[in-house]
Amino acid sequence: MRQFIIVGHKAATSGDFTLEDMPGSAGRIDILARCVTAAFVTSFDIRRDTQVCLVLLGEPDPPKIIRFDGAELRYLNPDERSAGALIRKALKVKLSMGQRRSTQGVYVERAGLVEALRYNDASVLFYLHEHGKDVRDVDPHTNNVAFILGDHLGLFEEATAQLGQAQTIRVGPIKLHTDQCITLIHNELDRLCST
Amino acid sequence: MRQFIIVGHKAATSGDFTLEDMPGSAGRIDILARCVTAAFVTSFDIRRDTQVCLVLLGEPDPPKIIRFDGAELRYLNPDERSAGALIRKALKVKLSMGQRRSTQGVYVERAGLVEALRYNDASVLFYLHEHGKDVRDVDPHTNNVAFILGDHLGLFEEATAQLGQAQTIRVGPIKLHTDQCITLIHNELDRLCST
Repeated sequence: MRQFIIVGHKAATSGDFTLEDMPGSAGRIDILARCVTAAFVTSFDIRRDTQVCLVLLGEPDPPKIIRFDGAELRYLNPDERSAGALIRKALKVKLSMGQRRSTQGVYVERAGLVEALRYNDASVLFYLHEHGKDVRDVDPHTNNVAFILGDHLGLFEEATAQLGQAQTIRVGPIKLHTDQCITLIHNELDRLCST
Repeated sequence: MRQFIIVGHKAATSGDFTLEDMPGSAGRIDILARCVTAAFVTSFDIRRDTQVCLVLLGEPDPPKIIRFDGAELRYLNPDERSAGALIRKALKVKLSMGQRRSTQGVYVERAGLVEALRYNDASVLFYLHEHGKDVRDVDPHTNNVAFILGDHLGLFEEATAQLGQAQTIRVGPIKLHTDQCITLIHNELDRLCST
């Protein structure tokens, strides 16, 4: 299992936004949408061994987490609007205790990074940061691994304080977008799995 | 200079489509939009050493090429709609002889793959294909290199016949989307440039 936990510091926590303005009024939901796509889609297929947990911390109703389970996931096409629509649908679900399913393979609940980290049952946790160790120089434990990534704002200090024993890694010499980092991590793991 | 030539076999050649339906009525313009984003955007920056040439072969007015020059490029944000809007604007330009500029750093003209290959002045040409040699096992000549990629339909036989001495490479063990391949190629070149 490969797990990606992505923190959206300004990401809207209501489903009232339009898919035409994900970068604006939705608080950079476009970033999270691209992360979902990068995590799951390959050419004509979905990565069934992957989970994504989006941590949404923006107004008006934070925090919420939306969890995508590749084993069950449906209705995800490669375009950004498709992932955005799944996120929006999840944010329209009324929450009380526990998680609720919004579409097949997509679950939403009232929770933040601490709970997202509890969901993660990986044996090793990596935190993506430009000053980390090169991913090619670490042992990424291909079978059961989780990665924590920030959005365009990185990861705030109070969040990094919760990461415990996470190892800090980077994917290359240039600071990239979160979805690009996910593509690069998958590639490293794909290569390890195929040898 | 890094150059990417991407063939969109069904990509619309008129700017009449809406940005809400790039995967449908626009003939998978969404694929080309994501390729433009992957080729140019890094975290809060644009790759100035990169050029992209989109070869659009769909109805109603093929062929057209749209060339993005990173050195001059403006108005490109990371969301898919942003790149889609630049493509649509280019497709709305009336063509006669030669190329015309639609926005800063974006040029359009009546031409196909043969002309796109002529534009490319790279010393080495690579063709991305799942059965190619691993990119990590070739010398990608970091300073002046071009890559040819197909869309979701790959590259048709009549196109591959025009590639001449292009070396066939792949980016990993799994067949990925074109934009993901571009992200992976950039990473390989970034690593070579930083050593």
